[in-house]
Amino acid sequence: MGGGFGGLQAVKALRRADVEITLIDQHNYHLFQPLSYQVATGGLSPGDIAVPLRHIFRRFAHVRVLLGEVTGFDLDRREVAVATDVPGAIRLAVPYDCLVVAAGSSYAYFGHEEWRSVALEVKSLDSALQVRGRILNAFEAAEVEPGEQQSWLTFVVVGGGPTGVEMAGQITELARDTLPGEFREIDPRGARVLLVEMEDRVLTGFPEQLSQRAAGSLERLGVTLMLRSRVVEVRPGGVEIEAGDGTRSRVQSRTVVWAAGVTASPLAQALADAAGAEVDRAGRLAVGADLTLPGHPEVLALGDMVRVADPETGQPRVLPGLAPVAMQEGRYAGRLIARRVRGRTELAPFRYRDKGSLATIGRARAVADLRWIRFGGFPAWIAWLTVHIFYLIGFENRAVVLLRWAYSYFTRGRGSRLITEAARTAKSARE
Amino acid sequence: MGGGFGGLQAVKALRRADVEITLIDQHNYHLFQPLSYQVATGGLSPGDIAVPLRHIFRRFAHVRVLLGEVTGFDLDRREVAVATDVPGAIRLAVPYDCLVVAAGSSYAYFGHEEWRSVALEVKSLDSALQVRGRILNAFEAAEVEPGEQQSWLTFVVVGGGPTGVEMAGQITELARDTLPGEFREIDPRGARVLLVEMEDRVLTGFPEQLSQRAAGSLERLGVTLMLRSRVVEVRPGGVEIEAGDGTRSRVQSRTVVWAAGVTASPLAQALADAAGAEVDRAGRLAVGADLTLPGHPEVLALGDMVRVADPETGQPRVLPGLAPVAMQEGRYAGRLIARRVRGRTELAPFRYRDKGSLATIGRARAVADLRWIRFGGFPAWIAWLTVHIFYLIGFENRAVVLLRWAYSYFTRGRGSRLITEAARTAKSARE
Repeated sequence: MGGGFGGLQAVKALRRADVEITLIDQHNYHLFQPLSYQVATGGLSPGDIAVPLRHIFRRFAHVRVLLGEVTGFDLDRREVAVATDVPGAIRLAVPYDCLVVAAGSSYAYFGHEEWRSVALEVKSLDSALQVRGRILNAFEAAEVEPGEQQSWLTFVVVGGGPTGVEMAGQITELARDTLPGEFREIDPRGARVLLVEMEDRVLTGFPEQLSQRAAGSLERLGVTLMLRSRVVEVRPGGVEIEAGDGTRSRVQSRTVVWAAGVTASPLAQALADAAGAEVDRAGRLAVGADLTLPGHPEVLALGDMVRVADPETGQPRVLPGLAPVAMQEGRYAGRLIARRVRGRTELAPFRYRDKGSLATIGRARAVADLRWIRFGGFPAWIAWLTVHIFYLIGFENRAVVLLRWAYSYFTRGRGSRLITEAARTAKSARE
Repeated sequence: MGGGFGGLQAVKALRRADVEITLIDQHNYHLFQPLSYQVATGGLSPGDIAVPLRHIFRRFAHVRVLLGEVTGFDLDRREVAVATDVPGAIRLAVPYDCLVVAAGSSYAYFGHEEWRSVALEVKSLDSALQVRGRILNAFEAAEVEPGEQQSWLTFVVVGGGPTGVEMAGQITELARDTLPGEFREIDPRGARVLLVEMEDRVLTGFPEQLSQRAAGSLERLGVTLMLRSRVVEVRPGGVEIEAGDGTRSRVQSRTVVWAAGVTASPLAQALADAAGAEVDRAGRLAVGADLTLPGHPEVLALGDMVRVADPETGQPRVLPGLAPVAMQEGRYAGRLIARRVRGRTELAPFRYRDKGSLATIGRARAVADLRWIRFGGFPAWIAWLTVHIFYLIGFENRAVVLLRWAYSYFTRGRGSRLITEAARTAKSARE
């Protein structure tokens, strides 16, 4: 249930199991989410990083794909309520013997839900397309509105994790390398990109040495780093930022990209309510070391929406919100179910195998922490490229993405800078 | 003015002229419109067939690109009124010494404007994305709504010109070659595709022999041809069709693609009003043999929105609404202006050089009429492929498109079958 990294791996692990699977997702595609920031900045097309779910499972005769939104769970009757996404929104009750919930998470706005309608995100494909339109439109607006140039050409990125770092780097490269020469009234190189991070360094999931290296790369690129700072107000015309020493400053900006905080999918709460369990402050459900819901061995939950019990202490732990975590949990869930079907003994508790992390800053710049070795610069970028190309599903996507990257590496161009209706009719910067 | 085939060529022809050019378009990209049906059926991504206008003209220092909608002309003050497309919709008055209007056309609904909101089109990139979402959603809906399967799986294409023939062929291939195996409740091969054409043959712009050949290909593919038939009613649930003998039949269909009739851009009327001229029934303005507006030698108009005076008789003639016509007229307009700037004599009247026509029916099927030779089948398809790849602007697009076509030729797959928000929030089939 859920066509993200976790759900996909769970279904794949059940490839040869004697079961019938219904995969429910709101979208008809699996999104390679770590690259959605590339769509948001015009480097890749939506079709490059998304593959139709039906296509992935076309040869899995025991897999049924259902396009719709899960609206609730009935654990006693063992049914999932689904509102289908087709015109007319037919409601279905999908029965199950065993349920796997992998609904992910979204960004948290620190209790300020009203900021969500102003800030932009690159979490989904649709929101990434919005960001693309809004960033490109900001340059267009600056070209025709001389009095407002500065606020149009100031971009604020909130959150110094991998997505924030990547967005800040990409917007800067767009302004410095791709757009110059295309405008007559403005110089896109004058654009300011601010990266706001609460902690005292970016990429807190990485060792400090690599954070320093990433910070150096960002600053050389032209990104303004604001560490130990937090956003205290988000309005359509700009943000207010509080520095570590308590001083506040206003930044006029029409384009705010949010990549901070994490809150579990509301389905974690729905599942907790149905099972009489609790969620933590980030809305995450606590599951056992075998990913099952306490008291409901037939219900498994995984990914960003859960905390998993530590195999030794039994205490719930938050694992990093990364694709490899969800993928390993998904594979575990699939294997567990396959074993049960064959009447075999239960599996050993789930353990996350951390193979390292990679983050890219821009063209030919990245940091890599493979645990046994840490490095940055061009070699890290090649490592990042290899891993991402390798994990992209589908031969065609890989070849096209590689071609686009090779092209933009040599020309610094970006092929997918279209402002389509989805972006234009989206949240207006002046509302 | 206008970033289509005509406007682009006019600007390019002024590459070395000592002029300042403002190119005004509603979109930030040039669309390779003959391939938008490929986007509508999932064969290509939007970025494959569209290139940012600013990117095309980044090295043309004398060209300024303005993103906005032309709302009127003041021929006495020599100003164009523009509503910019950026948030806040700033209005500008753009002065000119010489004006070129190349605003194109849209489909005509035979006096039934209310059908426009029900039927789908593949004219623009946004509408093509809508069609893609609607076609794919129709299969999704058929999967979950057994009682309505037939109306979801019936597709009506109105108009047997190149676009209608291509759409009918592509939808059929999508249903027969790409989707089978991906659904569990329905067999996509059961989809019906109806092509409705008023005349007694499809592709009336081609010699009769090639029309027969195209009709044969379509029927072998599985398209139901309804010749000498016209649509007399379009409702959200279906259409009513009147055959040549006057009998009427109702067809239940949730997906109607309109590719018939032609009506000039409303700017033709606006220009006519400003100049005290008239437009014909299709809204087209009459221009002289040098493409100038009678009485206003400083105003040129071209493309689908005009009738051009015959060099011999002086009578206005309708030229075919094809890209080569607009491109030749654009080049002529650019050359005429360049000559005037250098104080040279006027150019000989415009003459359209017809190099032939190509139309594709589906995978490895096409017809070609190069005037000196006519052929069909695989050789025509290769000719079609060559011409279309050759004219696609930008190296990257060509390589990516060729790769996608090679891939789908061998696998019959389609890489770009995403239902994105633009499509989903569009006109609902049940409204």
